[in-house]
Amino acid sequence: MYVMNNEYPSAALERAVSEFASLPGIGRKTALRLVLHMLSRPDREVEEFGRVMESLKRDIHYCKVCHNISDTDVCLICANPRRDSSTVCVVENVQDVMAIENTMQYKGVYHVLGGVISPMNGIGPSDLQISGLVERVEAGGVTEVILALSPTMEGDTTNFFISRKLSHTGVKLSVIARGVTIGNNLEYADEVSLGRSIVDRTLYN
Amino acid sequence: MYVMNNEYPSAALERAVSEFASLPGIGRKTALRLVLHMLSRPDREVEEFGRVMESLKRDIHYCKVCHNISDTDVCLICANPRRDSSTVCVVENVQDVMAIENTMQYKGVYHVLGGVISPMNGIGPSDLQISGLVERVEAGGVTEVILALSPTMEGDTTNFFISRKLSHTGVKLSVIARGVTIGNNLEYADEVSLGRSIVDRTLYN
Repeated sequence: MYVMNNEYPSAALERAVSEFASLPGIGRKTALRLVLHMLSRPDREVEEFGRVMESLKRDIHYCKVCHNISDTDVCLICANPRRDSSTVCVVENVQDVMAIENTMQYKGVYHVLGGVISPMNGIGPSDLQISGLVERVEAGGVTEVILALSPTMEGDTTNFFISRKLSHTGVKLSVIARGVTIGNNLEYADEVSLGRSIVDRTLYN
Repeated sequence: MYVMNNEYPSAALERAVSEFASLPGIGRKTALRLVLHMLSRPDREVEEFGRVMESLKRDIHYCKVCHNISDTDVCLICANPRRDSSTVCVVENVQDVMAIENTMQYKGVYHVLGGVISPMNGIGPSDLQISGLVERVEAGGVTEVILALSPTMEGDTTNFFISRKLSHTGVKLSVIARGVTIGNNLEYADEVSLGRSIVDRTLYN
């Protein structure tokens, strides 16, 4: 045989490709493209990229109140006296916090679960920050908990679990509105959302 | 204002997102997803990822003969006595070497240019390994140079430039065949390739 046994011409190259390909949504072809892009960049930049990744898990901290990613012990939202700490919005992850912050419609605080209950993926209630939420409500000062999880089977299961865990506290529980999306033609709305939008109609005023 | 001034809840998070977003084809949303994925992985794996990237440019070497990526001074293809070193296939980059190797149709050696002449992107002949190719042919022992660059304007320009630089050596110059792609219906072939396939028809035997 005159062809190479190995797919890659270099073990160092293959190692770097494998590292990139270990990321979600990045296949080996894309990974190779990324590595070759790296090789075309200045040494300093590539080393900096490596250093940031190496110390990533040491550099990132979580707010001890809401479990959002934070540079400080208590995150900027929880520490902000202008935020209404009596309203707690329960979300899945940091992206959801950022999405809700971007709406500029919410002035309460958050509680980041770190996921939703998903037996298929082996994620049970104990893998999430649910007991921390219960303790937070039990400690007093919280008047409303808003459930803002994804409107999926897993999200609904998690909502139900949390509602049972909080039932003894008597806290007001709400869930974000489900209905037709704004800006889309009604004929393209899915049946379930359209049905829900009729049942949950609000007063026009 | 009760909303955050900063898009990201943490400077460490933002730094890591920026690093990923500096890669081609990765936007800030994907970058955030990649960072959060990293945070869900074991410390050891994330640190290893960082270390591999940090030392990437030190770990990767280039073959001093063909400029392909290699772990050794002379790459495995150039060092293989079963490869025909009198035939040199000129390619743009390491992906093209891998693609041609995968065909298992080539037993010669390579010369990796590191790109093609592209005035639009500020890449001139001196940015490519063209003088090295000329020296290689001038040194003797090479009987044929196969031009296997992309069939684009830039590739054709580079082919023309190389052919002029090599004209005094008298080496046999060939270019990979252009025509209709195999396995596709003829009605979907583009006019230029179809036209070329008629002009460059080969004997049916």
